Amino acid sequence: MGGGSNRVETFPEFQDLESPPQISAHGVQPLEIHKVAFQKKQSTFRALKQELGEIFFPDDPLHQFKNKSFSRKLLLALQYIFPIIQWGSEYNLQLLKSDAISGLTIASLAIPQGISYAKLANLPPITGLYSSFVPPLVYSVLGSSKDLAVGPVSIASLVMGSMLRDQVNPDLEPLLYLQLAFTATFFAGVFQASLGFLRLGFIVDYLSKATLVGFMGGAAIIVSLQQLKGLFDIVHFTTKMDFVSVIVSVFKNRTEWAWQSVVFGLCFLAFLLITRHIGMKRPKYFWVSAAAPLTSVILSTIILFALKSHAHGIDIIGRLEKGVNPPSADMLYFQGSYLGLVVKTGIVTGILSLTEGIAVGRTFASLKNYQVDGNKEMMAIGLMNMAGSCTSCYVTTGSFSRSAVNYNAGSKTAASNIVMASVVLITMLFLMPLFYYTPNVILSVIILTAVVGLIDFGAAVRLWKVDKLDFMACLGAFFGVLFISVEIGLIVALGISMLKILIHVTRPNIVILGNIPGTQNYRSLGQYKEAIRIPSFIILGIESPLYFTNSMYLQERVMRWVREEEERTSDMNESEINYIVLDVSAVTAVDTSGIEALLELKKTLNSRSLQLVLANPVAGVAEKLRLSEAWEKLESECIYMCVGEAIAAFSSMSKNSEPDMRK
Amino acid sequence: MGGGSNRVETFPEFQDLESPPQISAHGVQPLEIHKVAFQKKQSTFRALKQELGEIFFPDDPLHQFKNKSFSRKLLLALQYIFPIIQWGSEYNLQLLKSDAISGLTIASLAIPQGISYAKLANLPPITGLYSSFVPPLVYSVLGSSKDLAVGPVSIASLVMGSMLRDQVNPDLEPLLYLQLAFTATFFAGVFQASLGFLRLGFIVDYLSKATLVGFMGGAAIIVSLQQLKGLFDIVHFTTKMDFVSVIVSVFKNRTEWAWQSVVFGLCFLAFLLITRHIGMKRPKYFWVSAAAPLTSVILSTIILFALKSHAHGIDIIGRLEKGVNPPSADMLYFQGSYLGLVVKTGIVTGILSLTEGIAVGRTFASLKNYQVDGNKEMMAIGLMNMAGSCTSCYVTTGSFSRSAVNYNAGSKTAASNIVMASVVLITMLFLMPLFYYTPNVILSVIILTAVVGLIDFGAAVRLWKVDKLDFMACLGAFFGVLFISVEIGLIVALGISMLKILIHVTRPNIVILGNIPGTQNYRSLGQYKEAIRIPSFIILGIESPLYFTNSMYLQERVMRWVREEEERTSDMNESEINYIVLDVSAVTAVDTSGIEALLELKKTLNSRSLQLVLANPVAGVAEKLRLSEAWEKLESECIYMCVGEAIAAFSSMSKNSEPDMRK
Repeated sequence: MGGGSNRVETFPEFQDLESPPQISAHGVQPLEIHKVAFQKKQSTFRALKQELGEIFFPDDPLHQFKNKSFSRKLLLALQYIFPIIQWGSEYNLQLLKSDAISGLTIASLAIPQGISYAKLANLPPITGLYSSFVPPLVYSVLGSSKDLAVGPVSIASLVMGSMLRDQVNPDLEPLLYLQLAFTATFFAGVFQASLGFLRLGFIVDYLSKATLVGFMGGAAIIVSLQQLKGLFDIVHFTTKMDFVSVIVSVFKNRTEWAWQSVVFGLCFLAFLLITRHIGMKRPKYFWVSAAAPLTSVILSTIILFALKSHAHGIDIIGRLEKGVNPPSADMLYFQGSYLGLVVKTGIVTGILSLTEGIAVGRTFASLKNYQVDGNKEMMAIGLMNMAGSCTSCYVTTGSFSRSAVNYNAGSKTAASNIVMASVVLITMLFLMPLFYYTPNVILSVIILTAVVGLIDFGAAVRLWKVDKLDFMACLGAFFGVLFISVEIGLIVALGISMLKILIHVTRPNIVILGNIPGTQNYRSLGQYKEAIRIPSFIILGIESPLYFTNSMYLQERVMRWVREEEERTSDMNESEINYIVLDVSAVTAVDTSGIEALLELKKTLNSRSLQLVLANPVAGVAEKLRLSEAWEKLESECIYMCVGEAIAAFSSMSKNSEPDMRK
Repeated sequence: MGGGSNRVETFPEFQDLESPPQISAHGVQPLEIHKVAFQKKQSTFRALKQELGEIFFPDDPLHQFKNKSFSRKLLLALQYIFPIIQWGSEYNLQLLKSDAISGLTIASLAIPQGISYAKLANLPPITGLYSSFVPPLVYSVLGSSKDLAVGPVSIASLVMGSMLRDQVNPDLEPLLYLQLAFTATFFAGVFQASLGFLRLGFIVDYLSKATLVGFMGGAAIIVSLQQLKGLFDIVHFTTKMDFVSVIVSVFKNRTEWAWQSVVFGLCFLAFLLITRHIGMKRPKYFWVSAAAPLTSVILSTIILFALKSHAHGIDIIGRLEKGVNPPSADMLYFQGSYLGLVVKTGIVTGILSLTEGIAVGRTFASLKNYQVDGNKEMMAIGLMNMAGSCTSCYVTTGSFSRSAVNYNAGSKTAASNIVMASVVLITMLFLMPLFYYTPNVILSVIILTAVVGLIDFGAAVRLWKVDKLDFMACLGAFFGVLFISVEIGLIVALGISMLKILIHVTRPNIVILGNIPGTQNYRSLGQYKEAIRIPSFIILGIESPLYFTNSMYLQERVMRWVREEEERTSDMNESEINYIVLDVSAVTAVDTSGIEALLELKKTLNSRSLQLVLANPVAGVAEKLRLSEAWEKLESECIYMCVGEAIAAFSSMSKNSEPDMRK
């Protein structure tokens, strides 16, 4: 016990040395019975305020402002909004060196990936570079993660591309398509920033791990299948995304397959996968995998340049625009028949990119042991996308693969994003012509390598081992994405996740409890072998809140326990059952239907001369029982603080042959 | 203690008389530490079988078949499927007398209500009588409730009428409309029977009490508003159902108002409401309110007959068809553009009528203390509607008002339904011409009186008092039905009900616990004033399952408790915090995200030199922790059976200055 404490007058350990020790088991000495207490009364307004506080401000984000002077508060507020003020004021050459190295490294990854992902979203390749320039700059000012590398990501690109292409053909109406993409980005940003501002950040937690494993796996396969177009150099490819359509399209267009492209692509794919493997096995050599995509681009471009027109069957990018992000605020599309589409696309890509960004931020923050404020981070990502949509960028977020490289390359602050943006800027201004001979197939294999990491077999196996229903949610998302559509996959997975929660409150565990000898504890007979039944009592532990969803079940299931126990005791010639004790410790909430179920149950039991006893209602439940006047109807003498005291009270009553004393 | 028991060798009360009493508080004598146990291992198949059994067969419906001979089993099975075999074999004249009286009484209610409700569904009046003939007969053979009076009901009639009229005009295409109504009834029956057969009966419990109070109230007002057409005798009435449209339509057609109809109607409305009030206040005089509708019909018909053509402005029913239910199986509509509509209408009316029927059956079963098997009852109602759809009936179920009259009139078995059906048959065959002069306004006031009872102000007030969120669900359903549509109202209410469950698992209560002096119990400091903190420990009770929805919240909220407690102890100069004990008794389930949250939390706490300790994981949670290998990572020495033992173990460790002994 840490010494120096002089305020522990009531600590039981010391208390017991003075007072005679209490005896723990039932009945030997009359046990002191504690009344079940209620929470201190609060006005409706105060209670509501506290409840809303818990829902929206669980982390008490303003606690650092308490008891500070005004100027200090102002500085803290500015630092809260612009974290760059905080780390910028302590910036030095040492940090710059680390950030410059990591910034250069992620730039070498960001440029080929940017071009590839833009193509995945059916956008002009340079949009990918635009999106790797403005958003990282905005994030470095507003963001609170030190490791997030910001830019376009594969899943959001895929989803945006697939949702928009459903209604607008990017080849026939490229300008409209571009407008819709920027507008969807704008709505994604507004949605993300509002979630953060309204402190609804917990919404991203609703995409459970299991759902995401399945969704990511399915999406990765969809993305990979799309790359078959580039790999086989097929011209007439389906515009659909689902597994069946793509496979059919690949085999129907066999005549268009170009073996040169396939061979060329497979060689570089092997190179990229091997370097990726090395980078993953030995984090020290992360730069091998980090540099591989740019190396592939340079190498393949040189080869194609050397072969020039001799390289039949290998399609090249061709001329790319040059220049810095043009403004696009006037291209935003706020009315017309596609408004519903862009809002929907914005929300779906917004939530997906938010989920990835927040998860990546939290992962690396936890590795370096600092905190990332989810809601604050959402506002940063949202504002970054809103700014992006006005400067020809599409949806961006923190990318997992680039952030990992950033972390391994030793980034210290968000300045590595500034370095990366500067390199991208130089590329956009001066180096675009160099990509003329870059083969499209290289972009496809770069995407292939990047999305392979999204398929997480190990996680799926662990889900199966630990939780079959989680595994079902995972499979639902996987097959939904693969065979129907990205949105359906997400909805299926969300549905299964919710269903799981509902099943738990529809069919709660009800376990029969027994005494652990020598203690006052009552535990499940199924779990603890040493637990023993108490004659005349059925003690049931109810493991779920009592809601409308389980109020009928509770009654039926308890009556079934009573029937089974009565059959057992009469078979075994034991003393007959008199009391049904419900241990409601785990009933953490109750609604009006649940209260009625308890009253109904009491009536049914009483009609069989059985007594219903409640043990350990928590504060919230006790309060509801009191408010609904069920407390009196359940007879307050039948509500105890713990099972032990209930048993002791009724046992001593039976012994004194006064079973009706308390009725 | 009931004597005669000779198998209680281990009952603690007796045991303690022999063994030296254990001392309950911490540290004075080294406490025996119990290992947390796991459930007995089961194969995946057995575990799955048990889980599915709990979900679909919680009431163990086959237990009565156990250990019986084959012929006995066969008889039981027949009795299970056709309850009439059971009660029919014991039927006698005494029972017949009671059933005849109650059957006649409900017939006098069923005939005017049947005609009125059919009009509410835009169907020919005689359909209401058809529906009061075949379905009650089918139910009396299959149903297990002794009090349910079967026939058309107001809510289902309204909903079917409103959903079908949305797409087909009953005045322009009466035959198609009739076809669709019968087909919707067929699908409702199929849906209901399948729910019962697949043992998914718990679905009806998802319409919580709160939702139903709001929904019924809203629907009752919608139905009442529709009656303004009849009351004011308006010819050009809106076909829409929502509040605003109807009110606008009533006032726009002021020129059509017929004062004769209004006066006539209001007189009979007053009569019906007064008799209803008498019937409710004095159950002995239930027959006053039961006979009132038929009396009104007879009286008003005689008046209109006497006045004949002098009665301007009072519309009469006119000629009604005669005869018994014509077959309608060939009218069912299984293909074409309206198939989606009838399936949807069938499902919505099916679930609504099921909810009413099951609730009514359970209510009266509980009053007479017998059990109604929900799933069995659903099959009966479903088959009844399927049979009905082939004999020109529309959706029927157990009506609350008529069942209450049936109960009060002293019905003993389902034979009262047979008596009622016989009276309806006689009416259909011989008495239909008598309704020629019955004024339409009387049917409207009969409906008005019937639905007034559905508006339950008292219940809404109780909801507000007990549970603000339940009240919100109630309001959502109410306004949704009133201002938008019946379906939207239902969806809103279901959504709010689900949301409530989700909020509970998104923002679980986490309370700080203290020791109740003199016991081994640890209870919330907010609830129990006598509870005291234990120096060096923070003991937190987590009141919800750990799911993906709250895994981030758990970490943030626990760290906030740690921060606040550390601030408090340093302010108060108390000994510093070393251990964080999570009482997970109420964590009744955990998923993969929840497990990761625990591991993450442990890491964060360890990095601050704090020790995470778990107390009392229930069987399911312990199992999941073991399967995911989190058990070892959390260090099994840091998981205790109860808070008391954890505190005792770590306190004695600190005293022996061996804080690392268990690490």
